[in-house]
Amino acid sequence: MADGRFFERKGPFSIAEIAEISGAMIADGCPENLSVSDVAPLQTADENCLSFFDNRKYLDAFAASKAGACFVREEFASRAPSGMVLFLSDDPYRAYAKAARAFYQAPDANGVISDRAFVDPSAVLATGVQVDPGAVIEAGVEIGAGTHIAANAVIGRGVVIGDGCHIGAGAALSHCMIGNLCIIYSGARIGQDGFGFAMGAQGHLKVPQLGRVIIGHDVEVGANSTIDRGAGPDTVIGNGCRIDNLVQIGHNVELGMGCVVVANVGISGSTKLGRFVVVGGQAGIAGHLEIGDGARISAQAGVMRNVKAGEVVGGSPAVPMMEFHKQTVALSRLIRKKQ
Amino acid sequence: MADGRFFERKGPFSIAEIAEISGAMIADGCPENLSVSDVAPLQTADENCLSFFDNRKYLDAFAASKAGACFVREEFASRAPSGMVLFLSDDPYRAYAKAARAFYQAPDANGVISDRAFVDPSAVLATGVQVDPGAVIEAGVEIGAGTHIAANAVIGRGVVIGDGCHIGAGAALSHCMIGNLCIIYSGARIGQDGFGFAMGAQGHLKVPQLGRVIIGHDVEVGANSTIDRGAGPDTVIGNGCRIDNLVQIGHNVELGMGCVVVANVGISGSTKLGRFVVVGGQAGIAGHLEIGDGARISAQAGVMRNVKAGEVVGGSPAVPMMEFHKQTVALSRLIRKKQ
Amino acid sequence: MADGRFFERKGPFSIAEIAEISGAMIADGCPENLSVSDVAPLQTADENCLSFFDNRKYLDAFAASKAGACFVREEFASRAPSGMVLFLSDDPYRAYAKAARAFYQAPDANGVISDRAFVDPSAVLATGVQVDPGAVIEAGVEIGAGTHIAANAVIGRGVVIGDGCHIGAGAALSHCMIGNLCIIYSGARIGQDGFGFAMGAQGHLKVPQLGRVIIGHDVEVGANSTIDRGAGPDTVIGNGCRIDNLVQIGHNVELGMGCVVVANVGISGSTKLGRFVVVGGQAGIAGHLEIGDGARISAQAGVMRNVKAGEVVGGSPAVPMMEFHKQTVALSRLIRKKQ
Repeated sequence: MADGRFFERKGPFSIAEIAEISGAMIADGCPENLSVSDVAPLQTADENCLSFFDNRKYLDAFAASKAGACFVREEFASRAPSGMVLFLSDDPYRAYAKAARAFYQAPDANGVISDRAFVDPSAVLATGVQVDPGAVIEAGVEIGAGTHIAANAVIGRGVVIGDGCHIGAGAALSHCMIGNLCIIYSGARIGQDGFGFAMGAQGHLKVPQLGRVIIGHDVEVGANSTIDRGAGPDTVIGNGCRIDNLVQIGHNVELGMGCVVVANVGISGSTKLGRFVVVGGQAGIAGHLEIGDGARISAQAGVMRNVKAGEVVGGSPAVPMMEFHKQTVALSRLIRKKQ
Repeated sequence: MADGRFFERKGPFSIAEIAEISGAMIADGCPENLSVSDVAPLQTADENCLSFFDNRKYLDAFAASKAGACFVREEFASRAPSGMVLFLSDDPYRAYAKAARAFYQAPDANGVISDRAFVDPSAVLATGVQVDPGAVIEAGVEIGAGTHIAANAVIGRGVVIGDGCHIGAGAALSHCMIGNLCIIYSGARIGQDGFGFAMGAQGHLKVPQLGRVIIGHDVEVGANSTIDRGAGPDTVIGNGCRIDNLVQIGHNVELGMGCVVVANVGISGSTKLGRFVVVGGQAGIAGHLEIGDGARISAQAGVMRNVKAGEVVGGSPAVPMMEFHKQTVALSRLIRKKQ
Repeated sequence: MADGRFFERKGPFSIAEIAEISGAMIADGCPENLSVSDVAPLQTADENCLSFFDNRKYLDAFAASKAGACFVREEFASRAPSGMVLFLSDDPYRAYAKAARAFYQAPDANGVISDRAFVDPSAVLATGVQVDPGAVIEAGVEIGAGTHIAANAVIGRGVVIGDGCHIGAGAALSHCMIGNLCIIYSGARIGQDGFGFAMGAQGHLKVPQLGRVIIGHDVEVGANSTIDRGAGPDTVIGNGCRIDNLVQIGHNVELGMGCVVVANVGISGSTKLGRFVVVGGQAGIAGHLEIGDGARISAQAGVMRNVKAGEVVGGSPAVPMMEFHKQTVALSRLIRKKQ
């Protein structure tokens, strides 16, 4: 059970309500008048809890679970303990996510502008915006309805933020336009000028960076991540992208919709990722490359060339994954021969 | 000598006092009524300074040092310059650390709550707590005696912090419980929700992250490091851990006591480290792994499988260190043959 | 054209003014009484725009460009479209940078100390200093003329900052001295104590870190980067260095003048870089090493030994670049043989 110091739980919800919320189907013969009061993993759930079974590896845990109700694929329904209410779904984890979000809702912005915040008189805040103590909102900023600016965040001159966003504590935004329903985590830095200068022995001369950062809807940018603004064109993050903590995104980079970028990744200037690209932790991508739709970059890979749509690459310099595995095996054989 | 703009020096201390503070033994024949007024390296120490000799490589520097007093292992005592007061210790660096801490004490919290800070009326602050300008302390927070909250730090709703801690400038804490005597450096982000969502072409749906971050006693978390809260279980950092700057620790990760994690490391979700594990800089550890007590992960290693207690691994993917060295040698031979 | 929400454009400038600003020479026969009102890339520039041609790869774009004026090397002047005003320069990009900086000047500090900032009475601020809301300036700080301290930045006790600097939103400085004309980006952490302790099973005992961070003139430190203060000696960043985002620099590290350090790099304690060293993204350099003048460390390299002046290294562990390329080729041949 989630710690009440930090989490507020809604519910209980009836079986019928859960079906509606999750879009899953109640299995035949299950009583619809029961209710569940919390969510929990299979191993710790009790008869008041709703759980999910999504990974064959946990079949034993499913068969032994005391959960009162559970999301499951139809093919495994027969393995359920007797008495468990079953919700049938092709994607039990997503159905569970929807239900869990009903129990534990992200709190709405409370509409209070703290008198300890600084809001420039020229800023335009829509209804329901919450601005916490110490936040600073500079001239010309526009903030959409129901957005929450957490404590000590800084929203620089002219920035536009959409509806229903959350800007984390101490984050700093400048030179950017952010869509609706985005979460910018604590300490993220968006819109500072990128690493652009004319190098030379007489000194590295800064070149004005005249683009912006354009962030779509439903985007998450992780804690302490950094996204530089464009040098002339914009840096663009597509709808639905998920960027983890401590990620660096250089100037002019473009991410198509639904990309997932894991922690500690660096993407160099002017590289373009297609849609639904996944970049594993600590991977690096050189500048001016094209990474195709649905490509997967393995953790710690070092990408030095374009990657085709759907391709999976690993290693540094990165090669097709199959090749990387063979290299690993060949290296390990090589040293065995030498012994 | 440390710059007086930034450091306040106590002392001088008599030889007898240094012996007591450090636990080291004064060598026979050394005058106990002398005193030392500062600490310094062997090379720059003068007759008023206390130094240490711990690394054979610096034997010449030791023999030539002008330090008035020095911590040393008994076996090297005979190599000291004449007139040097010797403190004998099996661990001269640790003995030195104790003495240096007496000269340069971390300043105590001054018990002042700045009227430029925001402290929610429901927060409970023990005696002697210092809260600097711009810090924000939200509802229900509890802070132990003598803890210092530096400028512009944000302590989120319900967070509990023990006694004698230092929370650095601009750090942000939420959903966490922190023990005594911890140092959370500037810009660290602790307790934000982890990278958890149901992926899919119809969008990546966020799954509520219902755990906390539990940090033991005497833990350090480096500048701009990030520790995500648990997804259901907690993320746990054991007593005495040292986490360097810019480290990412994913949800549900557990570190046993005394782990040392160097800068730029990423540890993926649900991985468990035993006691006294050392992780070198820029190493990455994949999710759901077990790293045994006393294991050592080399810098830049990419750990993809469990590591046994005491094992040393390197490379990406990581292999036993001996094997990694052999791979390196084999590769270098391979290209020589081809020439 | 740069977005007017975020950028203020000066000008127009006459052809003669541009020649003077940039130091480039107007090609024979070009009318000096014309003017240009903006800068733009070759592809999007119109007849009112000033552009540059620096990379042979874009020769077609140059020949087809509608730019009214362009910086170019003399050898390519004959390839210009007719009617284009040509500025001849040996370094067209640098000449362009100078012109672009005239159109888009970094705004001067406005001399306003916000009443929402906290400035300790003992701090000394020179004329024209701007301190934004939420910034905290502690006791004994000295700030030079025309320096801008952005919102929620924290300048710790005794810190000295030169003239004409910009300290970004939410940055935190302590135990450091900073020269003139430096830019410290948002969220950078400078001067915290480094990762120094006496390790041991009875706990890792912190050793007081008694040095400072000394930063020269015209230095940039990227967003969320961290620079630890020296342990006894100082950590030193030479004039004209450019440090990108999310870089970690350990205690006692020294960078000579003009070094360029790309994002996500880690440099371990006591390592010394010469002048004009370039360190590629995500590279790591072990502690106590010497990296010679003009050396180049490739992205993701892991440097475990000294690097000579002018040497180029890559791989992990890093070897001379030529050798690293051969290793890569040899590995790829090896697996082809095995198939």
